[in-house]
Amino acid sequence: MEDNKTIIIYDSTLRDGAQAGGISYTLEDKLKIVERLDKFGVKFIEAGNPGSNIKDQEFFARVKKMKLKNAKLIAFGSTRRVGIDVKDDINIQSLIAANTEAVAIFGKSWDFHVKEVLKTTEDENLQMIYDTIKYLKSLGKYVVFDAEHFFDGYKNNRKYALETLKVAKEAGADSLDLCDTNGGTFPMDIYNITKEVVEMFPGTLIGIHCHNDTGMAVANSIMAVLAGARQVQGTINGYGERCGNADLITLIPNLQLKLGFKCVPDENIKHLTSLSRYVAEIANMIPNERAPYVGAYAFTHKAGMHIDAVKKNPASFEHVNPEIVGNTRRIVLSEVAGRSTILDKIREIDPTVTKDSPVTKEIIDELKRLENEGYQFESAEASFEMLIRKKLGLYQPFFTLKEFKVLINEPAVEYSSSAIVKIAVDGVTAITAAEGDGPVHALDNALRKALEKFYPELKEVHLVDYKVRVLNAETATAAKVRVLIESTDGKDTWTTVGVSTDIVNASWIALVDSLEYKLCKEKVGK
Amino acid sequence: MEDNKTIIIYDSTLRDGAQAGGISYTLEDKLKIVERLDKFGVKFIEAGNPGSNIKDQEFFARVKKMKLKNAKLIAFGSTRRVGIDVKDDINIQSLIAANTEAVAIFGKSWDFHVKEVLKTTEDENLQMIYDTIKYLKSLGKYVVFDAEHFFDGYKNNRKYALETLKVAKEAGADSLDLCDTNGGTFPMDIYNITKEVVEMFPGTLIGIHCHNDTGMAVANSIMAVLAGARQVQGTINGYGERCGNADLITLIPNLQLKLGFKCVPDENIKHLTSLSRYVAEIANMIPNERAPYVGAYAFTHKAGMHIDAVKKNPASFEHVNPEIVGNTRRIVLSEVAGRSTILDKIREIDPTVTKDSPVTKEIIDELKRLENEGYQFESAEASFEMLIRKKLGLYQPFFTLKEFKVLINEPAVEYSSSAIVKIAVDGVTAITAAEGDGPVHALDNALRKALEKFYPELKEVHLVDYKVRVLNAETATAAKVRVLIESTDGKDTWTTVGVSTDIVNASWIALVDSLEYKLCKEKVGK
Repeated sequence: MEDNKTIIIYDSTLRDGAQAGGISYTLEDKLKIVERLDKFGVKFIEAGNPGSNIKDQEFFARVKKMKLKNAKLIAFGSTRRVGIDVKDDINIQSLIAANTEAVAIFGKSWDFHVKEVLKTTEDENLQMIYDTIKYLKSLGKYVVFDAEHFFDGYKNNRKYALETLKVAKEAGADSLDLCDTNGGTFPMDIYNITKEVVEMFPGTLIGIHCHNDTGMAVANSIMAVLAGARQVQGTINGYGERCGNADLITLIPNLQLKLGFKCVPDENIKHLTSLSRYVAEIANMIPNERAPYVGAYAFTHKAGMHIDAVKKNPASFEHVNPEIVGNTRRIVLSEVAGRSTILDKIREIDPTVTKDSPVTKEIIDELKRLENEGYQFESAEASFEMLIRKKLGLYQPFFTLKEFKVLINEPAVEYSSSAIVKIAVDGVTAITAAEGDGPVHALDNALRKALEKFYPELKEVHLVDYKVRVLNAETATAAKVRVLIESTDGKDTWTTVGVSTDIVNASWIALVDSLEYKLCKEKVGK
Repeated sequence: MEDNKTIIIYDSTLRDGAQAGGISYTLEDKLKIVERLDKFGVKFIEAGNPGSNIKDQEFFARVKKMKLKNAKLIAFGSTRRVGIDVKDDINIQSLIAANTEAVAIFGKSWDFHVKEVLKTTEDENLQMIYDTIKYLKSLGKYVVFDAEHFFDGYKNNRKYALETLKVAKEAGADSLDLCDTNGGTFPMDIYNITKEVVEMFPGTLIGIHCHNDTGMAVANSIMAVLAGARQVQGTINGYGERCGNADLITLIPNLQLKLGFKCVPDENIKHLTSLSRYVAEIANMIPNERAPYVGAYAFTHKAGMHIDAVKKNPASFEHVNPEIVGNTRRIVLSEVAGRSTILDKIREIDPTVTKDSPVTKEIIDELKRLENEGYQFESAEASFEMLIRKKLGLYQPFFTLKEFKVLINEPAVEYSSSAIVKIAVDGVTAITAAEGDGPVHALDNALRKALEKFYPELKEVHLVDYKVRVLNAETATAAKVRVLIESTDGKDTWTTVGVSTDIVNASWIALVDSLEYKLCKEKVGK
């Protein structure tokens, strides 16, 4: 066991995380996540259950070739089956075949599960725990014992739950990890029960594994650490079975920045935000904008009074500096942001405008009208800037759309869609055609082709993100949609928005705003 | 103060919730939410800040006409400004103009804020608290005192923080609500500090208001209740500034089902899930699928071993019965679900299939291949059933697509899009045309028109939801999209899925599956 301020971070993003609804990793995904977790500095990576699926067997063969700097891989499995020799258990054989230095074995600590699920005796369950750990230790493995449903078991039959730990320890388990498998335990109970276990096994590493079914997995893990647990299991972004696991992305800074524990190297705390988003992207999950520390809104200030205070001193409404965790402060543009925020934005473009200028009211009214229609400018500041320019008379259209037509054909030869765009710039007409995967792609290609003749600087611009949100789904295929387009010219990045009942039209609005924003930017030399 | 097991639920969905990034309620939205919260049985509805925005002033005028059964409305505002008479403060005047029986006043409890944000003396801040509450009490209002940043204040200057409470109490405040405004306080600190306050003000109602910046708002609120707080502030789904507030949707069942407190009438607990989804829909936020108690995944079992155990006894992996909170148990279809779940689904259609039948492997392989392509069948069981039918040879196409063409025109006369669909049924060709808002809508209309000639039962089918998810946004407008379509025939509801780089094509796949599913259903009389 390490010094008393060191916490061993045990990541299960690839095992319990893979049991989350909506997540399905490819083998390549898993390898990428292992690499990133190792770099970040977690100590254990519980990477799969080779007994339960073939993909994990292939994965362990592949991952062997990777050179890990910090982390040890863990293959996960259960105690031997009822009534057989541990050596004959095919799942145990798969676990050994994974060929990792360390393994985790979960065993039943709740008598109810022994009876109802395993349908065996309490003694046989103890024997299963003992045999399995003893056998794996005889092969030289480092063995983590996951006491499944430990807290529920303790509450139902304290003596038996503790007995499972004793047997695991006798068999040679290197750590005893207390699992709140169903996520129903409360913070004080976690504290008191963990404390009793820590005191019962002096010198033994005690771990904690919490689920979030009552929304308290992070707090419960903290309480266990305060009670003496020094190994913390969890997953990146809290992905896991049902409501998920304790979120390491929240837990690590809570422990390291707030309680002075050492979980990962200090210099890696600033990678928390990018780690969270990287794993979300690979898992193909929408990032939680409200996630503590790393969410897009975690340091976003919206109420007028908060914005004013944060301008005076950020600590007034921020519990930590966002830069420490690699996040950024944002002040959002919205009707509740208060006039001063909107005025600041206007004055960036025209410093002579005051809060009493008629144009200020005009812009606020237009903002409200568009927000009612479904627009959102919080993440589309480029569109908001274009709106201000239009109201200030600082905008001249860079082109006029004469017409566009998109034709979608099925069956398709190569591309399903082709578009014709006809525009005019200073009286000169251009008509272009292009193909694409789908109507928006075709239209995007044709418009750029037309505009680049007049504005070669648009060649630098390309789209980096494209998001669609259905606003009123109840009207189904005629629903209103909001499209957000993120563009870059290699130097800057900006986002624009369009709303329409027609996805092509909504995309067109956002696309035109994006290209005109770039042209404005070049013109005013901003 | 009521008996010791009663908790007063104080909802701020319409005030702190409106400060959440991405949320912008219309006046109608707010009225709908008030009605629903009242029906659900919360005691206080903090409904807006009339001093900060005009929309809230209009709202309070309108809401006056509603007859509320249980709840009292609260208008929210701050103490008077520095150096003026409370009667001359226009925000206080707006607060009074809201004409509610009860008001909430927030005042500074953190000396740092007094100095850095208010830029005044500690004495003047105490006077501001006193004057404001005293004045509102003289007008007969019920006054809640929100001690802003109370816990940060206590840690920085215990004596001053407690002094602000004493002054508020002396001025006549009806409750003292301790706010962890920046969300950085830990559970044990919340417990100890709240306990001290409860003991210092015997007989006074103490409230708690937590933010989720360290992911512990729910646990912190629970700790405050255990320490003696009896008023709990929070919001539906935890919407609020930055990372949000304590989530009442988790807190209420935690308190009522697990700790035996009385928050709302027992018979309303079963409406938790629908309340959560209703507010998410109005707020236009994507529901959190992993939300405790009410999320789509909260009682969804994915790992094979969990599924087997839940079939034996649901309590094995469920901390409460999902029906109690109006949610449902789901067993998901995925590659990690294990063969037995997939086999069960196959055997619903053909009971003669066994796990060793070659078709079982074929279906699992096809499932894996499609999941790799971006399909997800967890929420699209109708598409999965169609896949099984195809592999079992129980499917004959109901029609053959000859071709479709969609033309999008801008500028548009009435509808932007028109579609031509040519299909054949049993050698008979039909060609139809239809218009729509956007290409998918036009195509949907044209396909139905064509099919209804042959299958009049399709007239009963209509679409209830349409979702688009961009899968690999980095390729921008050529990104792969997944479309989910939910359909109903008035009796049943089913969901189908399509994936393509072309949104029109992805929609087409899901649409065809949906209509064929209905026809299959009719044919086999299921």
